[in-house]
This record gives sequence, structure tokens and C-alpha cells, in this order.
Amino acid sequence: MTHEQKIHQWLKQNGMRGIKLLQRLVQEPSRREQEGKAQAIILEKCRELGLSIDLWEIGDDSLRNHPNFYCDRTDFKGNPNLVAVLKGAGGGKSLILNGHIDVVPEGNPNDWEDDPFSGTVKDGKVYGRGATDMKGGTVSLLLALETIISLGIKLKGDVIFQSVIEEESGGAGTLASVLRGYHADGAIIPEPTNMKLFPLQQGSMWFRLTVKGKSAHGGTRYEGVSAIELALEVVNQIKLLEQKRNDSLNHPLYENLPIPIPINIGKIESGAWPSSVPDKAIIEGRFGIAPTETMESAQTAMEDCIARLNAEHDWFQKKPIEIEWFGARWLPGKLDLNHSLMETITDSFIKVKGEPPLVEASPWGTDGGYLSNIGGIPVVVFGPGTTEVAHDANEYIEIEKMIEAAEIIALSIVGWCGPMRDNIHGKEAD
Amino acid sequence: MTHEQKIHQWLKQNGMRGIKLLQRLVQEPSRREQEGKAQAIILEKCRELGLSIDLWEIGDDSLRNHPNFYCDRTDFKGNPNLVAVLKGAGGGKSLILNGHIDVVPEGNPNDWEDDPFSGTVKDGKVYGRGATDMKGGTVSLLLALETIISLGIKLKGDVIFQSVIEEESGGAGTLASVLRGYHADGAIIPEPTNMKLFPLQQGSMWFRLTVKGKSAHGGTRYEGVSAIELALEVVNQIKLLEQKRNDSLNHPLYENLPIPIPINIGKIESGAWPSSVPDKAIIEGRFGIAPTETMESAQTAMEDCIARLNAEHDWFQKKPIEIEWFGARWLPGKLDLNHSLMETITDSFIKVKGEPPLVEASPWGTDGGYLSNIGGIPVVVFGPGTTEVAHDANEYIEIEKMIEAAEIIALSIVGWCGPMRDNIHGKEAD
Repeated sequence: MTHEQKIHQWLKQNGMRGIKLLQRLVQEPSRREQEGKAQAIILEKCRELGLSIDLWEIGDDSLRNHPNFYCDRTDFKGNPNLVAVLKGAGGGKSLILNGHIDVVPEGNPNDWEDDPFSGTVKDGKVYGRGATDMKGGTVSLLLALETIISLGIKLKGDVIFQSVIEEESGGAGTLASVLRGYHADGAIIPEPTNMKLFPLQQGSMWFRLTVKGKSAHGGTRYEGVSAIELALEVVNQIKLLEQKRNDSLNHPLYENLPIPIPINIGKIESGAWPSSVPDKAIIEGRFGIAPTETMESAQTAMEDCIARLNAEHDWFQKKPIEIEWFGARWLPGKLDLNHSLMETITDSFIKVKGEPPLVEASPWGTDGGYLSNIGGIPVVVFGPGTTEVAHDANEYIEIEKMIEAAEIIALSIVGWCGPMRDNIHGKEAD
Repeated sequence: MTHEQKIHQWLKQNGMRGIKLLQRLVQEPSRREQEGKAQAIILEKCRELGLSIDLWEIGDDSLRNHPNFYCDRTDFKGNPNLVAVLKGAGGGKSLILNGHIDVVPEGNPNDWEDDPFSGTVKDGKVYGRGATDMKGGTVSLLLALETIISLGIKLKGDVIFQSVIEEESGGAGTLASVLRGYHADGAIIPEPTNMKLFPLQQGSMWFRLTVKGKSAHGGTRYEGVSAIELALEVVNQIKLLEQKRNDSLNHPLYENLPIPIPINIGKIESGAWPSSVPDKAIIEGRFGIAPTETMESAQTAMEDCIARLNAEHDWFQKKPIEIEWFGARWLPGKLDLNHSLMETITDSFIKVKGEPPLVEASPWGTDGGYLSNIGGIPVVVFGPGTTEVAHDANEYIEIEKMIEAAEIIALSIVGWCGPMRDNIHGKEAD
């Protein structure tokens, strides 16, 4: 039997173990600052697999002083990062397998059919917050490792499994692992891509604009200057900027997307009293960053747009729009479509599915931005689960996809890290 | 000496008494539900003047069940309405003098140079919340009465002085006084008109629009429908409606106003997260009502506009905009420019100032709406103080204007209610 056949067979017989593991992970609500108990389950599994464990609380000075640390969390006590290494024999390429353990809040429990943290299994799906984003993906990683270890396949390169905190809040967990020295020749992040390969990831930053008008009584509203009307002008200018930025993108993966790097106006607040002309408006939004640009150049594009408006607009000359960048940021990511890591995963995909994977650009940032931009590590985002159900009520993952992803990842590990020669012979001869 | 001369002289000698009275009134912060102590000062003054007092707590069933009771206040205990009558000898026209005792909140005390309720006298002005809106006007009324009473001028018609609560919240105090049976042949309300005559008053109602979009991740914002963008379309439609309504107005007093009956968008709130497409927007505003229309027809104009948008707009066909009318309402008011009450006040004005008054339409509703629409009483709004400083920090009134208004009102009382014949002869002979 070939490795492929053995991996397929092992997962066919044992893949369902992943369900129990995923249920236990979902049942620990690992919201921000509550990641500890779910990490303990991962730790237990990694020990069982015999991996070398590195468990630590992030937040040292090297992290906090890093220019790309965009994090408002101060307390990391009791909620560690975890890295578990399957050491290779040497002479092969290393691979990071990165998953985040934190989940977004569950929202209104009444919107859920079952308890948000039930881990209920129904119709071939596991339900609960984090099932798809991305505990299901993490289970695929652990199943892939378990398959390889159980089958006794020896690798040349190291496999570095990471279960990090803080992805949903900007990625400080993965940044900490990069700064701790974890590098590799490639990385796979099984975020919910619905089994597509995402070599490109859109980055993003949050902005806040403060627009100032002039108050007046609503009955003589012409004596004031409405911050709401000014805000509308600003929003229109931002839409023009969005159009200009997107028109100038020409990556093949962006050909079919209506707006590859959107500028989303997510929030507007203005006025306090129906009978008054509002004198201030706050606009908050998400600025999409192209994989082909830097965060700094994206920032400059937006600041230039606002500066031009401040220079050309009569009112804004007197009361300039203020811009702030606040909250979390997600670095964009970019890998050549024909990079060897893409080839390895594509080959594995074809072996399992009998057809090539869809290749797309992700509309959101991932921790891959830190791995590639700060760590210099080639990254492909590929995983089971779908974005449609992530962050929503009744989040679920299809069990079949989770196990299929495990198989493709196991083959990719073997293909990338390289099986030991004697190992090949020994096993292939069975 | 003529009445005019005597009134002028008396006020010249005694008008400064009004300062002390105004200071005491300003020093009692008669915010909503805290009107009692300021009313007690008015009561004391009315007793001193020998008026017949009617002091009562409003809120009986006839008020609460009235179709024009737009009030969310349930507790009127300890904060009474006050009506004090100077009974005439009979055979003359009666006159209501109406002032409200409630003041709007003082806002941030740090925005004030002195304490908001200091009653400080500086440079010929009395400072403090309510000085201009409208305790200063009320002092003009009381000074006018004191002048007439002190000079022993006997009147034919009744003078009905009213110090009401709730004007700033829609006028339940004045509505209660109408329902209690206080009617007259005319009324003067000394709101801050800056010594202009306002025979027309703009009414208003508050509306709330709920606009529904479709949520999506900001990175794929084209998969959602932004409630903010929809709200902008709605705002534009409302501006068209405003233009149409104002274009069709042709009252001479509106010729020079840029927007006689504005629709003010006072507040907008949409979205909760920069990275999400917002699925709901709430717009709140003030709908100006022309003196020449009814509240109902104004309401219909707005509802028709929204209904048309709901019928014609693809998205709103599926998710219609919802409209609510909420909070307080102010009825519009209208008096013929050549009504005899206008003539009386104009004559008095010319006698005091040597030139005719400016005549304008008020951009806001007053309790005059209740007096005229419900009570059928001709109303002119005329008073010292200016709207510019009302509702703002460092509110003040010019003492000279307050006393000048008292003189014009005193002459108007005598002119309207008619001095007794013997009284005329007796006094004019002095």
C-alpha cells in the first residue's frame, strides 16, 4: 500500500475520533480571555501524540514593543499559547500547522437552536460556536498528525503544530509564536475556506473619522451645518477611493470579485436630539488591504483622500475631518500561485478528491499575515468549514469535510516534509 | 400725564425690581419635574399683586385622554400649573399672558462661565439657564402687571396670567389650562423673539425611521446591503420632500426664509462593528409643520413619501422602511397679519420704540399652538431674549430689553383690555 492508501484507510477507520475531540473543544467556550480550558484539551491530545510541547503565556516586552502588536488586551494569565513539534529526522522542509483556539462571542443564545456551546451532532454536522471557525480545522490538523504518527511514517522536516489565542482580535498569539522563534518553510492555516486554497488574503485596518458640523435649532436648520450631511459627502468620497483602488488591481484571482478590497462603512453615529442640527458625526469602518500592498501604503491612500477633502472643501478647510486608526489590524498575505507549497497541497487535494481545488483570494485577514509578513513564511489558507456560518448563530461544520481536510493535510505534510527513505521502502514494501 | 407716560416713568423708576425677581427665578433650577420651587416664587409675586390665584397639579383624565396630549410624563405631583387673574370691570376684551416656568437641562456645567443657575448680573445682562427662555419674558409680564396695578389703572377686560409647566416637552401645561376653561380674546407669549412679533409659529413633530439592510462581512461587503447606504437614499428623498413642501408655501412672512418649514435629520445610528455591513439604521428627525396646514396633513405628506419609496424601491419592497411618530409635538400657530391684536401690540411698540416692530414667523412651536388650535385664542408671540442663546451655555437676557418688553406689554394690556372710562378721565386729568 502506498502512503496515500494507508492514510486514506486509517482515516476511514479512525477519523470519527475527531468528532469527540471537536465536541469537547466546542463545549469549552474559549471566548477571548477564556481560552485556557480549550487549550488544555489540545495540550492533552498533543501529549498523547508524543509531541514536544511548548506552552507559554504571551505578553513579554518583545511582543508588546513590536511595531505590529495591535492589541488592547493586557492580561494573558491562564490562557497560554501552545506549540507542539513533531521533530523530523533532518534534511526536509518544515511546516507550520496553525489554528486559533479563540472564538467570537456567541451572540444572542435565543438565535441558536441548541445551546451555543452544545457540540450537538446532527445530520453529519457538529454544531456550536467555533465549530467552523476554527476548532474543526484544528481537529483536521490533529487528525492528520495522529494519522502520520499512528502509521509510523517518519518525516525529514519538522511539523510545528500551533494552537494560538487572539486571532479574532488581531493575531497577537501568532505574532508571539513568530517572535518566540517558530519559523518554517511553509505553513497551512485551516481557516474555513470551504476546501478552497487561499494563497492571497485580504488584510484590514479599522478607521474612525470625526466629522464636525455646526449646531442649530432644527426649525432654522439652515443656520447650522449638519454633520450628517457632511458625513454623507465623506462616505461618497470614500466610495470613489474604493473604486479607484479596486480598478487598479489586476491579480488573476481578483478578476471575478466585484470588490476585491472593499472599504466598509460599518458604523455611523451622529446627533443626540431630533430637533437639533447635529454638530458631530463619527464614522467607523474597515479598510481592506490588498495582498499586493503594504499596510502603510493602504493607510497613506486613505489619509491622502481625507487630506485632499480637507484641502478642497470649504467647510473642511475650517473644520478638518479627523482620522484615527484604531483597534485590531490584520496584515494581508500573498503567495505565488505556483509556489511549491501550492503545488504540494494541490497534488494532495487531487489525490483525495480526484479534481483540482478551487483557488481564491480570501476576503479577510488571517494569522497568515503575521507568518508571511513578519516571519517570512509561505502560507496557504485551506480548511473545512465555510465563512457563511462563522460568527453566526447555529455555526456548524460538516464532519465529512473535516476528515477529508485531515487527509489532504496529512498527504501535504508527507509531501512537504518528505518521508524518510528507509521508511518509504519499509512501509511501501508491506 | 397719559397712561403711556406714566407707565414709562413707573418702569424707569421701578423696572430694576425685575432683575431681583429674575435672579431668584433663575436660581431655582426648574428643569422638568423640578418646577415647584420656581412656581412658588411666581405664586408669591402674584399674591403680592393681589391677583386671584388658581394653583393645581395637572394630569386629570380630561388631559390624559385628550387627542393632543403628547406627553410621556406621568408624575406631576408637587410641580403645579399656576393661573393668576386680574379681574376686569367687564365690557372689555380679555388677554392671556402665558409664560412657561420649565427650562431645558443646563448641559455640561464646564461650558458655562458661571454656575448655570447663578443668576449673575454682568454688563446689563442676567445670566443663567432659563434667563432668556423664558423666565425673562415672564418677568416682563409680571412687571407689566405690577406697573398697571401700581398706577391704579383699572381695566375692563380680564388679564389672565399663566405660568405653566411642560412647554419644553410639548405643552401639556398650557393644554391643561385650556381644558380647565381659561379662554380669552387674545394671548401674548413672551418667548425670546428678540422684540419681533411672531403671528405665525412653525409646528413640529418627531419621526423615527427604521431602515433595514442585510448583514455581511466587510471583506465581502457586496454580499450584504448596507443600511447606511440605504439611509443615505432615504435622507435624499426627505430633502426632496422638504424642497417640495417649502416651494409650495407662499405666505408673505416666508418670502425671505431659506427653508420656512425644514425637515431636520437630527440623529442617525447604524452599525455596531467596523468589519460588518450594518443591517439596520435608525434615523430621527423633526418635521416642521406650516402654520397653514394641520398636523395631520403634515404627517400624511411624510408617510406618503415613505410609502412611495417603499413601493418603488426594489429593496424596500422586500424590507419596507418603518415610520413612527414619537415624543412631543408642537402645534403650529397662525394669526392674520392685520388682526386687531397685532395692531394693538404694534401700536404699543411704536409708542415705546418710535418705529414699527419687525414681524416674522417663528421657526419653532410654542404653547401658542394649544391656545390657538385647541382654545381658539388669537396668539402673538413677542418677547425679549434671543433664540441664539436659548438652550445654550451662558444663556442670558438683556435687562433693558426685558423692561422695554414690559412697557410694550403694559401698553398692550391697557390698549386691548381697555382702561375704564372714569379711570381714563381721572388719571388723564392729573
